[in-house]
Amino acid sequence: MKLLSFSHQQRESWGAVVNDAIVDLGKALPHYPTLADFIASPDFAKRDQIVGGHKPDLKLSDISYLPVIPRPEKIVCAVRNYLDHHKEAVAHGMDRQITEFPPIFLRVWRSQVGHNQPVIRPKVSTHLDWEGELAVVIGKGGRHIPESEAMDHIAGYSIYNDVSVRDYQRHAQQIAAGKNFVGTGPFGPWLVTTDEVSDPTKLKLETRVNGDIVQSSDTSFLIFSIPRLINYASEIFDLVPGDVIATGTPAGVGFTRKPPIFLKAGDVVEVEIEKLGILSNPVIDE
Amino acid sequence: MKLLSFSHQQRESWGAVVNDAIVDLGKALPHYPTLADFIASPDFAKRDQIVGGHKPDLKLSDISYLPVIPRPEKIVCAVRNYLDHHKEAVAHGMDRQITEFPPIFLRVWRSQVGHNQPVIRPKVSTHLDWEGELAVVIGKGGRHIPESEAMDHIAGYSIYNDVSVRDYQRHAQQIAAGKNFVGTGPFGPWLVTTDEVSDPTKLKLETRVNGDIVQSSDTSFLIFSIPRLINYASEIFDLVPGDVIATGTPAGVGFTRKPPIFLKAGDVVEVEIEKLGILSNPVIDE
Repeated sequence: MKLLSFSHQQRESWGAVVNDAIVDLGKALPHYPTLADFIASPDFAKRDQIVGGHKPDLKLSDISYLPVIPRPEKIVCAVRNYLDHHKEAVAHGMDRQITEFPPIFLRVWRSQVGHNQPVIRPKVSTHLDWEGELAVVIGKGGRHIPESEAMDHIAGYSIYNDVSVRDYQRHAQQIAAGKNFVGTGPFGPWLVTTDEVSDPTKLKLETRVNGDIVQSSDTSFLIFSIPRLINYASEIFDLVPGDVIATGTPAGVGFTRKPPIFLKAGDVVEVEIEKLGILSNPVIDE
Repeated sequence: MKLLSFSHQQRESWGAVVNDAIVDLGKALPHYPTLADFIASPDFAKRDQIVGGHKPDLKLSDISYLPVIPRPEKIVCAVRNYLDHHKEAVAHGMDRQITEFPPIFLRVWRSQVGHNQPVIRPKVSTHLDWEGELAVVIGKGGRHIPESEAMDHIAGYSIYNDVSVRDYQRHAQQIAAGKNFVGTGPFGPWLVTTDEVSDPTKLKLETRVNGDIVQSSDTSFLIFSIPRLINYASEIFDLVPGDVIATGTPAGVGFTRKPPIFLKAGDVVEVEIEKLGILSNPVIDE
């Protein structure tokens, strides 16, 4: 099942995608104001039955997409978690080793944008770069989740574009500054529940800028696996339903090119992941 | 004025401290469910008149302290922002330069604890270290706030203990992992509004462990000033009322000592800042 968050006539809601239509579950189930509330509820397990009992309310073309989870409590992002991207960074002259533990940083929800909404190139920088990523949405929270049980804590998968302001990212050793600009966190278009993604370790991922393929990889290149990321995050955080883990980006980012390529107003950046869909965003200037 | 968040008989509320009593403003002004909502409102400017119109409801001894802002949208933390702490880290053999831009990382609200609530030493580590800090609470949000106007965006000041799990902090170049454990973000006991803090650049700061002074400095040692931190953060984030900026810690942390000293169950860690009060927390094992 595909679940999404959207706005329609200034109202924020969420629902299920059925072909090219939407069952407006925010309207049908007002006791779950957000998709994260639904994911946290026992009704999430009965979603097929619930959605089957409602007729579609809206067309996909009627709505504006919001970030799949508009206000996650935590957005935990893996750093340099693809072997191919690690190698390109080292080849670019960066002094990096693969660490024993997954490197992570945090993004704030207010940096997020929905599918088709503009990515904003900030006025303080021209170094705006793409990072297509597989996003994991936590379904069942917890602490100290063993790797062997981690997959049971996932509600579904989605696409993240961890758009980065490279000069701010390198102002200091901590990269959070370059990873949190307003309008730099595309997340969508929807969440695909785990039952429709039999093996998340073998999904093709492609990023395109104005139709040109810039990243082409697949999730088998992950250095730290999805279960390990969940396990590690849960040693630190109390994970809750709706938390997001962005699993890192493969090779092909703009800064490693010669000359580097950065996003500019008028560009369209798309991330496509097999079985999940296409996350597309135009770029505008702040 | 001192404003705080608290729980009383399982109810979360917020209010003003008058001597050793509390005016329960969460009850008196139910249209502002949280202190952050009040700070964001025009009524915040009329706080003296509002509080003056109510009799105290509770004694300070009746309540449990919550983090001053229990769920800030953003907790932006400055890294190594005291000249004395920078020097002790370099003397400890760390390869660090003072950067041109303020180094920042993010903490999640779920890591926070209130005054008198336990700091939790996680079962995965024994390297639990204190970091007494001046916290700035944003009153008026905004983007691209010039340094010259930054002080007008502050609601007040409080105390943060940026308790750090040093081994997790050093698992990778990104320190967020060691700065976000559940039960490691004491924040309190209250916010003191700006009118009562004439000069935040000359406040004595002292951290004590079981009564022994371990940090003794003052806020004049800040490398990046409060206006510069707000200015820089607002280039990246859309700041909103209730956002927190933890301004960094001075010299005297545990890991630079020979031998290092870490917090353990039974310890009591206190941070005292002139004009603000004392933030005290016992340490327990997870």
